[in-house]
Amino acid sequence: MRHSLAGRAENAIQAQILAQLRDEGPLSKAQLADRLEVSRTTAASEVARLVEVGLAQEAGPAASRGGRRSTLVDLSQDIRFVGISIGATGLSVGVTDGRLTVLATRTRECDIRQGPETVLAVALELAREVLAEVGVDRPMGAGVGVPGPVDFHRGVSVSPPIMPGWGGYPVRDAVSRELGCPALLDNDVNVLALGEQHAGVAKGARDFLFVKIGTGIGCGIVIDGQLYRGVNGCAGDIGHIRVEEFGPTCACGNSGCLEAFSGGAALARDATAAARSGRSPALAALLEEKGELTAADVGTAVGQGDAQAVQLIRDSGRQIGQVIAGLVSFFNPGLIVIGGRVTGLGHALLAEIRGVTYRRSLPLATGNLPIVLSELGDEGGVVGAARMISESIYSP
Amino acid sequence: MRHSLAGRAENAIQAQILAQLRDEGPLSKAQLADRLEVSRTTAASEVARLVEVGLAQEAGPAASRGGRRSTLVDLSQDIRFVGISIGATGLSVGVTDGRLTVLATRTRECDIRQGPETVLAVALELAREVLAEVGVDRPMGAGVGVPGPVDFHRGVSVSPPIMPGWGGYPVRDAVSRELGCPALLDNDVNVLALGEQHAGVAKGARDFLFVKIGTGIGCGIVIDGQLYRGVNGCAGDIGHIRVEEFGPTCACGNSGCLEAFSGGAALARDATAAARSGRSPALAALLEEKGELTAADVGTAVGQGDAQAVQLIRDSGRQIGQVIAGLVSFFNPGLIVIGGRVTGLGHALLAEIRGVTYRRSLPLATGNLPIVLSELGDEGGVVGAARMISESIYSP
Repeated sequence: MRHSLAGRAENAIQAQILAQLRDEGPLSKAQLADRLEVSRTTAASEVARLVEVGLAQEAGPAASRGGRRSTLVDLSQDIRFVGISIGATGLSVGVTDGRLTVLATRTRECDIRQGPETVLAVALELAREVLAEVGVDRPMGAGVGVPGPVDFHRGVSVSPPIMPGWGGYPVRDAVSRELGCPALLDNDVNVLALGEQHAGVAKGARDFLFVKIGTGIGCGIVIDGQLYRGVNGCAGDIGHIRVEEFGPTCACGNSGCLEAFSGGAALARDATAAARSGRSPALAALLEEKGELTAADVGTAVGQGDAQAVQLIRDSGRQIGQVIAGLVSFFNPGLIVIGGRVTGLGHALLAEIRGVTYRRSLPLATGNLPIVLSELGDEGGVVGAARMISESIYSP
Repeated sequence: MRHSLAGRAENAIQAQILAQLRDEGPLSKAQLADRLEVSRTTAASEVARLVEVGLAQEAGPAASRGGRRSTLVDLSQDIRFVGISIGATGLSVGVTDGRLTVLATRTRECDIRQGPETVLAVALELAREVLAEVGVDRPMGAGVGVPGPVDFHRGVSVSPPIMPGWGGYPVRDAVSRELGCPALLDNDVNVLALGEQHAGVAKGARDFLFVKIGTGIGCGIVIDGQLYRGVNGCAGDIGHIRVEEFGPTCACGNSGCLEAFSGGAALARDATAAARSGRSPALAALLEEKGELTAADVGTAVGQGDAQAVQLIRDSGRQIGQVIAGLVSFFNPGLIVIGGRVTGLGHALLAEIRGVTYRRSLPLATGNLPIVLSELGDEGGVVGAARMISESIYSP
């Protein structure tokens, strides 16, 4: 008999069993009963129900603990999740098993400004490729991250400044229909925070912030192990926090926003100005060679010892650090992870962010506060998107 | 038989029953079963246990819903909590019943700088007075709020800048020992947020911020109905968020802190300067009359139409609004309540705070965001302190 794969956890005990199996691997029924503080009878009957709906399977006798042998329980080997991570200039798609191990993955360059039909067609093509590679017709669920604000409950993008044509587009429902499974949509920052929690430096952290510094700047907030999205789903929008009274006009229409000073686009703009003014020989050479500069080029110039490039990174890190210091005073997190396209300029930037944050926040809040760089690459978004949908499937 | 009053909720179902009775009043066993989604048998057996430990009592037959009559359940009429709200210059002490209705209260001027022995002696004297007034020897629990940082888990004040002598003093244990009941200690801002949630404009709000503007400035954070204290218990310390690169030196040792610009002490300082410079006739007259100025005097001068005083309020409100706008971008709350000693200058300050916040935050986050003044007086701290200890007693 083939199990139906339409199952979902039906109650809180089943949800806890699935989360344990996802995060810890196979466990005996006795171990599950102990960890959940329920009777062995209850554990056994809930496991039986999970087996019935195709979410769990029995995996032989457990190692003896003395007394009667308990049966080992694992997530169903048939579970497959799709994670789709859409960025401003490219996308990654992967398929995972129930424990969110990536089984196959594809990455492709793709400009978000081509609009939702074109970009989603590419994403779905890659999804079908990875599903075919692992021999699966229909996944159990799909998670999608996009680089802009999302109405999580409706599953649509909301007035995304760098995503023309995406506003109000039913991304979640389109992916769900095309892949024939439940789907969820969130912004890339929240998805990356979940990836970090599952497979990165935040593994096991209960209260942390994930700060993404890419073209824009945003923050994922995890409270007591759960993503906090705010009342309207737009929590973590720190790119538009004011850092100076005056400053360059931001895409949001205000001036003085963090993002307009310190985002990747702002860094590229300032690097181009430094190159043209003759203040930075290294950046001028890079501009001549490539025709335009990106934030990564500033990192290259820093590597060549260019003083002006170092100054740009320092200024950027100082502004970001001042905002993070404010968040630390307000939120008192246990860990801050810095991620996004900061490769190359990561450590110089990190040093400045740390300096400002540790100096500006209350000692009680920073005493044991690590501020670290993410070590996950593109896979972070794929794992995070898969984690997001797994949390929904594994919950009642 | 006299019930022991040492009881506590033993499990999550009992905790839900007690919270329902506290927030809704007497309910029938049938209603409790419906609301908790448990069987009537389970509801009845948990109620019986709560009656046994002296937390609940049966209160006669419920109104008929057709069919067999259910029994009405109420919180025990014997429950008494003490709430102690200690401020910088005075303290309020009250005794409440199980639903946190204040039965008796006392307020006394008392300078926090006299140190913990003296101040706590006054607080405990008032506590004994209110307990005697309602004819109770020993309350079921006591909550205490103090105007400075607290290590919630240890129950002590931590390096409190305006509270010399309080650092490390075991406030919680001293109150617990003297009143012969469990006690909890937190900072005044968190306690006021709880009071607001129970009896104020935040009644029923799940995610809100309570911003206290007094001598200092702080913020209580309620997430999903629960106070969020942060990893080290110092979340909400927004008075030391930087609002300007340079500025007056703050008590914390940094410069540019919000509190050093916009707290009550800063406002009194700036008002004194305005009076002495001759820029403000109204403040100059008040200074001559009283010998020194407080934040409240600025409110008086505003009422007299003094342009300089209006400007001081505007500047203060602008800085506070900029910090709140940042918190809105980060946290996306459903409600912001402004409280503290802002009486008199409340509405002028509120208008400025609203203007800046609504202008600087993302429209999605401010669309349905009320920013309102607290309407609770001194009783807010008493009710909040009682609520804090009730949540502990009513939880497993």
